[in-house]
Amino acid sequence: MSRERANIRRMTGYQYGEQPTDPNVVKLNTNENPYPPSPRVAAALSGFDANALRRYPNATAAPFRHLAAQRFDLAPEQVLATNGGDEALRLAITTFVDPGAALAIATPGYSLYETLGALHDCSIAAVPMQGDWRLPDDFAARANAAGARLAVITNPHAPSGAFVDVATLAGLARALNGVLLIDEAYVDFVDPALGHDTAALTREFDNVLLLRTLSKGYALAGLRFGFLLGAASLIEPMATKARDSYNTDALSQALAVAAFADEAWAQDNWQRVRAERRRLGTALAGLGFDVLPSQANFLLAEPPAEDAAAIYLALKERGVLVRYLGAAGAAAEGAGEDGTQQAKTAAERLRRALRVTVGAPAENDALLAALAEVLGCR
Amino acid sequence: MSRERANIRRMTGYQYGEQPTDPNVVKLNTNENPYPPSPRVAAALSGFDANALRRYPNATAAPFRHLAAQRFDLAPEQVLATNGGDEALRLAITTFVDPGAALAIATPGYSLYETLGALHDCSIAAVPMQGDWRLPDDFAARANAAGARLAVITNPHAPSGAFVDVATLAGLARALNGVLLIDEAYVDFVDPALGHDTAALTREFDNVLLLRTLSKGYALAGLRFGFLLGAASLIEPMATKARDSYNTDALSQALAVAAFADEAWAQDNWQRVRAERRRLGTALAGLGFDVLPSQANFLLAEPPAEDAAAIYLALKERGVLVRYLGAAGAAAEGAGEDGTQQAKTAAERLRRALRVTVGAPAENDALLAALAEVLGCR
Repeated sequence: MSRERANIRRMTGYQYGEQPTDPNVVKLNTNENPYPPSPRVAAALSGFDANALRRYPNATAAPFRHLAAQRFDLAPEQVLATNGGDEALRLAITTFVDPGAALAIATPGYSLYETLGALHDCSIAAVPMQGDWRLPDDFAARANAAGARLAVITNPHAPSGAFVDVATLAGLARALNGVLLIDEAYVDFVDPALGHDTAALTREFDNVLLLRTLSKGYALAGLRFGFLLGAASLIEPMATKARDSYNTDALSQALAVAAFADEAWAQDNWQRVRAERRRLGTALAGLGFDVLPSQANFLLAEPPAEDAAAIYLALKERGVLVRYLGAAGAAAEGAGEDGTQQAKTAAERLRRALRVTVGAPAENDALLAALAEVLGCR
Repeated sequence: MSRERANIRRMTGYQYGEQPTDPNVVKLNTNENPYPPSPRVAAALSGFDANALRRYPNATAAPFRHLAAQRFDLAPEQVLATNGGDEALRLAITTFVDPGAALAIATPGYSLYETLGALHDCSIAAVPMQGDWRLPDDFAARANAAGARLAVITNPHAPSGAFVDVATLAGLARALNGVLLIDEAYVDFVDPALGHDTAALTREFDNVLLLRTLSKGYALAGLRFGFLLGAASLIEPMATKARDSYNTDALSQALAVAAFADEAWAQDNWQRVRAERRRLGTALAGLGFDVLPSQANFLLAEPPAEDAAAIYLALKERGVLVRYLGAAGAAAEGAGEDGTQQAKTAAERLRRALRVTVGAPAENDALLAALAEVLGCR
């Protein structure tokens, strides 16, 4: 006998990337940072008194929130610490979208948005991205027409790496009737030459939430620590009502503070990832791939031949794991059936593409060697 | 402008216990374990490679689930690891109770149940406990009459410490149309002479969930690690759909395994807490308190004079923090207005009582000395 709610019975759970147990696998499939976290994380770990764990953690992660508030020139009441970015997404949906009401997203995108929406019994207003992976100009208008209480966009976008500037984001915030959540999971990897600074949006608009995570930029995916920035009026109901009372544990709070305080280490890390992103992109292009410009720590690359799925498998056989999101592409294409030809093209392009995490130099070399072999064999 | 959902605007957030920053405060207000966790936790902490945190954690906490399954003679598919017990409660409500449908609880009780129900827009079927802190015999009938999809009971009960045996729990499971979640946060402290073993209920009934946590019995409140046991058909939708994909982090998984594997340490801890529970109960009775028999790591004690709130404040002035749940008692009394005279009595008794965590011997001595002073002054 199934006892779960009908919407949950119907829905499909989120499919996370493969986690190989073989440590020799070159793992370029889940956008983990190839470099270690700040040495201050190890120092915080070894300096942590295990006996302190018998007490509840700081309920609101106040030390981290104060540090983040200082960094972004906000008040601590504008910062909410979360158990990874996933919790931040869930809290925003729980807090702002009534069951049955609309959640606007751009597709193809991070499939968790749809999963969380289905879990919460939202209607999904899926707006297909354009063929060049830009948001359509009428994104806000379509979200408003659907009555969306919350619109989620990813910037830099996943899985394309495409990037939207602050002026465009401000235009979206202004145009939307509901809350705009900008998922900035990959924002740390944006080229500093672009001067991209979104924190001011949370001061200018009372409907903007910025989602950040330590998983990618701070090399702490295993720690589950993310945070939201926004107007205090948006943060307050999430922090005091929707959030589990002790949502982040004492150890992760301590390690998050250590990592986040070490700006120099983090910036050096991002610079190294960007350097490899350039090198890998150039090399993939040299192998005949059509590589999208990316401001994230991954590249979406379309192989010269069309069967990305076969290349994914051939790489896997050679111990190199990348991400093939063909199924997601097909689903997005379905969602775009009433959309434009361009929209179908974005989904089609995803089905022809591989998403490759930017690894350490040796990992990228291994990928390139395996790819040369695979493509040469064809 | 308030943008949160109307039910969230209306609701009150959960009020967690005070967290004093002064380390000299005798903290007997949030049922933390007075003794340290297993030394294996410190060993796991110091042996943990911080660099491993750049990778995502095991998504399902498989090593812990296998260990717990072995302990309780269940399959790993019958175990769900959660970010503290609070997440387990939230997942059960999310998975089994449609918005608007009923959640049955016994009042007075752990106020988080009502908070989570309000967050999820449930109707709360609040069944008042009897004057002697027993569940009324018609609890299941009333839950069924309200159409409850989920009924939550706490056993041992909080804040009373009252205890229900397995036969009674089986009767409830059989009688309920919905899912029965037994919150066993304090079950580790039950006298082993009672032979209390509930795991078999999850094999016998397809509608029983057992909630466990490492916060109390394993002295790891700061770690946020709990788990659910139940039929695979109940666990599966929570594990694969409602749960955040990486809900427990790599460090807490490693430390939870270390703590849970050290049964001998844990059992010694529980024995010491029980010994102090006896001693403290006798001493409180000697001071004129009416002390309820408790199978948990706290005592609900009614002072000889009726103003428990004043005693709470006088203790606080003397650096001893206990829990006064008078406001909760008043709310429960309201909920019981259509109930029996006995029901009102349970809520009234709570308003006259203090909940005192069983501390280490020196902490309990400090409480008793402060109480003697406070009561002597009157």
